[in-house]
Amino acid sequence: MSKWYEAKAPHEDIVISSRIRLARNLSDFPFESRMTDEQRRQLSEKVKQALSHVTVSGETLQFTEMDSLEEIKRYAMVERHEVSKEFIKDPTHRLLGYSKDESVSIMVNEEDHLRIQVMASGLNLTSAYQQCNKIDDVLDSELDYAFNERLGYLTTCPTNLGTGLRASVMVHLPALEKSGLMNQLTATVNKLGLTIRGTYGEGSKVLGSIYQISNQITLGITEKDAIQNLESIVLQVIESEKRARESLLAEKRRLEDVVFRSLGVLRYARLLSSREFFEEISNVRLGVSLGLIHDVEISRINRMMALTGSASICEREGRELSPEDRDFVRANTVRTYIS
Amino acid sequence: MSKWYEAKAPHEDIVISSRIRLARNLSDFPFESRMTDEQRRQLSEKVKQALSHVTVSGETLQFTEMDSLEEIKRYAMVERHEVSKEFIKDPTHRLLGYSKDESVSIMVNEEDHLRIQVMASGLNLTSAYQQCNKIDDVLDSELDYAFNERLGYLTTCPTNLGTGLRASVMVHLPALEKSGLMNQLTATVNKLGLTIRGTYGEGSKVLGSIYQISNQITLGITEKDAIQNLESIVLQVIESEKRARESLLAEKRRLEDVVFRSLGVLRYARLLSSREFFEEISNVRLGVSLGLIHDVEISRINRMMALTGSASICEREGRELSPEDRDFVRANTVRTYIS
Repeated sequence: MSKWYEAKAPHEDIVISSRIRLARNLSDFPFESRMTDEQRRQLSEKVKQALSHVTVSGETLQFTEMDSLEEIKRYAMVERHEVSKEFIKDPTHRLLGYSKDESVSIMVNEEDHLRIQVMASGLNLTSAYQQCNKIDDVLDSELDYAFNERLGYLTTCPTNLGTGLRASVMVHLPALEKSGLMNQLTATVNKLGLTIRGTYGEGSKVLGSIYQISNQITLGITEKDAIQNLESIVLQVIESEKRARESLLAEKRRLEDVVFRSLGVLRYARLLSSREFFEEISNVRLGVSLGLIHDVEISRINRMMALTGSASICEREGRELSPEDRDFVRANTVRTYIS
Repeated sequence: MSKWYEAKAPHEDIVISSRIRLARNLSDFPFESRMTDEQRRQLSEKVKQALSHVTVSGETLQFTEMDSLEEIKRYAMVERHEVSKEFIKDPTHRLLGYSKDESVSIMVNEEDHLRIQVMASGLNLTSAYQQCNKIDDVLDSELDYAFNERLGYLTTCPTNLGTGLRASVMVHLPALEKSGLMNQLTATVNKLGLTIRGTYGEGSKVLGSIYQISNQITLGITEKDAIQNLESIVLQVIESEKRARESLLAEKRRLEDVVFRSLGVLRYARLLSSREFFEEISNVRLGVSLGLIHDVEISRINRMMALTGSASICEREGRELSPEDRDFVRANTVRTYIS
């Protein structure tokens, strides 16, 4: 079975992935912050039972108990956006359910009792939401959600109250960044009630010109409106990035020099830091998107970005590595991927 | 017929080329600085007549009158070390005789009436001197050299008085340079009565870690001793460079990273300045010499160095180019040469 990130996708030249996440809590348990370990164990069992009714592409979910994993593996999962940072802080009774194609993942005992997450490649919010909604319906019929007629779904943090929905899109904006237009864009996006931030969410650094744009408002708005609002603004961001790319193309030789040099580094370096990898792969992605580089696939680039994090590298090597050893393995991994 | 620089040569991992030059003047003409144009014309004719008796590998020389060439072509010849800078300042009545394999070149009406030059690849001073001496003997029997029993050959500049011999070797010393040992080496070499300087002789910048080591003393020393002295010191420099290379190899991954990145730049860049080209090709040459890079030939590297100068590029394009256009053509030229 192919993975979600291998699919050709709408707007994949600029949009890396779309994500829908629903926060849900059960009325017969206190919120996470007030739960005992025993309650967490009970919740985990109960939810696992309910999740056995969920199918994705005709197949039931697989499960991983976070405390059965080595620490390095858990860090690698965060790096690949498979689980949240919050989720691995204390792995006790934390359960992950996921589909074979990795598009669906459900965290049990995260900040909320349930975090249902669906990923899709490119700009694909609607289909991701439909998938998420279907799973939510199945669980709703099996579990007793904490729901208030006036407020909507009750959540640990009030910022999720209402729909419990967070829709987000990972966008690759190298041309806007190179043209110094990101500050202006960030201000505009914020004014429109959305958030734009770095690759690993709140407070994180921007790596490889990849930004995450997500909705903020969950109260007094329908899921459909929230998603449409995000999507229409992302479409405008895509247009801005396209215009900025056209400006860069006006000096085609210089742009080609930049993107091909980056391809050269990825194909020839023997030591590659994570930071440099992201800078170079960002240029290569731009080059591929603009049709300057022909022999590299966008999906391969996206996958490389996920696989070359320090934790993922240590996970594959099966041990902690020194920074230079990591840079060495990263360079080797990238070379085999991109040559 | 293959060119001199295409031959496999002794110590080619470190020594690029050896050069022997003899300065000669005719007793029946004043020194260059005091000659009239008419005298220069007469000298040129007379010498051309004498040069018709010279053969190299069984073939007679070819001739170029410098004032028949476009300026750009003359600059390109200087860049490729085919003639001296001095020689093209005023091309009037300046005549160049050269062999098909380009190893022998004879400048008429340079600073001295005659400058006989022989090039060889690698460390090959003795064979170059033998060739030069043979030509000198032929000319000596045809022309009346200005010679003094006590002083030796008379020359325009007293620094050439005596043997009129300048022997020089182009060496590639990237490891000594990277290890910060060049100042020390320069001091030692100078103490031993030799000169070490940049790629284009006196006062020129060092490009690509290439240095020219040459004898200084021409008075009170035989040709043989001068050459042996230079050769034995060059052999010591070679040993120092080899030791420095071994130290660099102790951190093999880092060295591989440096040399392969440079190979990547040369194979992928779309704009390449002369300065950067020399930096990168120097690393690649080091990588090839150390057996780290396998698919590039040393002779091809040497040739690339000669062909990618700004004047040579303009010469091939047949017109003056802007700096960016030159960088563009240089990158294209290098890519086809090294891929």
